[in-house]
Amino acid sequence: MDCIVNRTHFFNARLADDMLADLTVADGHFSAIVPAGGTASPGAIDLAGQLVLPAFVEGHIHLDTSFYGDAWRPHIPCTDGFDVRERVAFQMRNLTLAAPMAERAKNQLELCVGHGSLAMRSHVMVDAAVGLKHVECILGVRERYRDLIDIQLVAFPQSGILSSPGTAELLDEALKLGCDLVGGLDPASFDRDVNGHLDVVFGLAEKCGAGVDIHLHDAGTLGLFEIEEIAARTKALGMAGKVAISHAYALGDISADALAKAGEMLAVAGVSIMTNAPGNHAFPPVAALRKAGVTVFAGSDNIRDSWWPYGDGDMLNRANMIGYRSGFYEDWELDTAYELVSNAGAKALGLEGYGIAVGAKADFVALEARHVPEAVVAVPKHRAVYRAGREVARGGEVRPIGLRPAVPAN
Amino acid sequence: MDCIVNRTHFFNARLADDMLADLTVADGHFSAIVPAGGTASPGAIDLAGQLVLPAFVEGHIHLDTSFYGDAWRPHIPCTDGFDVRERVAFQMRNLTLAAPMAERAKNQLELCVGHGSLAMRSHVMVDAAVGLKHVECILGVRERYRDLIDIQLVAFPQSGILSSPGTAELLDEALKLGCDLVGGLDPASFDRDVNGHLDVVFGLAEKCGAGVDIHLHDAGTLGLFEIEEIAARTKALGMAGKVAISHAYALGDISADALAKAGEMLAVAGVSIMTNAPGNHAFPPVAALRKAGVTVFAGSDNIRDSWWPYGDGDMLNRANMIGYRSGFYEDWELDTAYELVSNAGAKALGLEGYGIAVGAKADFVALEARHVPEAVVAVPKHRAVYRAGREVARGGEVRPIGLRPAVPAN
Repeated sequence: MDCIVNRTHFFNARLADDMLADLTVADGHFSAIVPAGGTASPGAIDLAGQLVLPAFVEGHIHLDTSFYGDAWRPHIPCTDGFDVRERVAFQMRNLTLAAPMAERAKNQLELCVGHGSLAMRSHVMVDAAVGLKHVECILGVRERYRDLIDIQLVAFPQSGILSSPGTAELLDEALKLGCDLVGGLDPASFDRDVNGHLDVVFGLAEKCGAGVDIHLHDAGTLGLFEIEEIAARTKALGMAGKVAISHAYALGDISADALAKAGEMLAVAGVSIMTNAPGNHAFPPVAALRKAGVTVFAGSDNIRDSWWPYGDGDMLNRANMIGYRSGFYEDWELDTAYELVSNAGAKALGLEGYGIAVGAKADFVALEARHVPEAVVAVPKHRAVYRAGREVARGGEVRPIGLRPAVPAN
Repeated sequence: MDCIVNRTHFFNARLADDMLADLTVADGHFSAIVPAGGTASPGAIDLAGQLVLPAFVEGHIHLDTSFYGDAWRPHIPCTDGFDVRERVAFQMRNLTLAAPMAERAKNQLELCVGHGSLAMRSHVMVDAAVGLKHVECILGVRERYRDLIDIQLVAFPQSGILSSPGTAELLDEALKLGCDLVGGLDPASFDRDVNGHLDVVFGLAEKCGAGVDIHLHDAGTLGLFEIEEIAARTKALGMAGKVAISHAYALGDISADALAKAGEMLAVAGVSIMTNAPGNHAFPPVAALRKAGVTVFAGSDNIRDSWWPYGDGDMLNRANMIGYRSGFYEDWELDTAYELVSNAGAKALGLEGYGIAVGAKADFVALEARHVPEAVVAVPKHRAVYRAGREVARGGEVRPIGLRPAVPAN
């Protein structure tokens, strides 16, 4: 007797290895994947030979500070060269004028889901000025969208830790409220105290059993020094696989020898590197780091916020950008660009049951492409997105689904 | 009495200056543009407040060598570092396996038109091996698609001029057959004779009254030297506005002083610069060159060919890439990125009647964006494309239209 309630059959799915397959989903997971050719059962869904990929992984986004779907906020540069503090102040002014945070976060979430991302890591600002307001709001958004997308939250000290008194305690509180990771921000250039900053970050991570994901923009040998310190602490605490460095621009402008040494250290320590392949400055060399055994993953970073106007929430387009910026032309290189937004992302985020495999979660995307390399260069926009085997978006439009009730606003 | 046969009214068009306007098209040209608000006449087309922009200008493409829409041809790198001759040989092997050229060119044209480009400049290979075969084929394609898109053709010496005996005569013949411009290719690094190469190019241009568009990849001071030579010849021959340098990578890796000098020289001579904002090496600094008065325009360059797998034929996405690669965040900078694929492209190509203005050709695109900066960062894909006031594409799909008869194959 078959007791499973929700069983869905899909036929004619083209998998990344070029196999044409029929897929069965039971209770949200793949229960069977067999070569196509059997008789389609009544009610089965025809995937028409489209390429079926596991849903993309958005590895770095800011759900609290985007203006996507809200009024247009023209970018205004800093008065005398880029300055993070001035930018944070500009952001605070912008945010006072913006639509409610939950609404803006929803806009951004639906943009991402519509493009096929069903797992993401979002940094959420914590500092002495905003306290835990952003965290509380985005925790509510996460709960409301739990059936649609898996969200990890990083308690992000946007104004530094030592520079913004009380932030260490707020980060601690944010982790207790439900954040999964503790963040950091340029320990050297921002807080001017590498050890002081990292003591708090790793201290909280150890105390709360949380992961770590640190924003590191510091360039050259200074950035490299901080990367070494982060790797050393990760190794000492046995936190392999639970620590990431976002941006890590320094890896893009050091010598090949220094890069090789850093790559080995990161691989041994189990520290992942996140890049969005920025447009106009150096970024971590993807191929060299992967060759050294480092997990490199990708994120949109900001989308229409106070830092820049770019971003589209499309991780397949991000794979395209990573390939384009890295000079990836061969098929295996295009496969690599895709890895960053899929399997490597899943690994960096520690996702369980990721992929197109029996037993894995049936979170997938179907799109018009013959194989992964073509998907990466063509970035087909007409996609169908399935969450636990159920269609949740098509052509960028997210279907109205039964959301969990909104958490009352504070 | 009104003798005009084809008159179409459009209402609720949002123009780039934010004016909501009603447009009248008579015999393919805008005959009236007035503030919205009048009563819509019967049969008038509602543009629903969408942003209306003049059709994009594709300033550099290769219609003869793309495999877009054909079988996937994996990229294979050169055996010992990049080498143009080896790449040309690889391309020749690929082309023998490919679908007929006219079919591949059609695929690419429809890709471009679907995204809103209704004017383009295509380079077409001419050398001792292929002779005029490519030119003859693409001239036929141009004729067949004349009612859909305006195409300029550059007779492009893909295997050099001095290196490939007989090419000078073939270029001459290509211009007589109908090519509009004479091309060139790295006079120094390829033909090893800057003056010899440029003597042929400018000699033919002067003799035939043709324009010039030279591929120049040579870097640093060598490339700069060639740029100076091209500018000097342009000035001496009074060819201002008729000469372009494509790629001109050298402008991206010289000192600010050298760049300022080069910019002034290019502006005075009237030489335009074409860039596609390549992903992984230096390219001409768009803002600095424009500030110096240089016309900078943009093209896709190759799309799925033997040189790389990238390219999507979407000039709005190219504007996005130019902005992203240039660090353009402010509204005026995003406007600048758009300029390269519109007005500056029209200027570089010498197009007449370009723009949304009374008397201009009614070749335009309607898309969902509040203004140009938003269009550049969001790159909305659902577009309606109008040629001479008639809808020719929507959502990327080109409507079947009455094409001119195919020229019989040789």
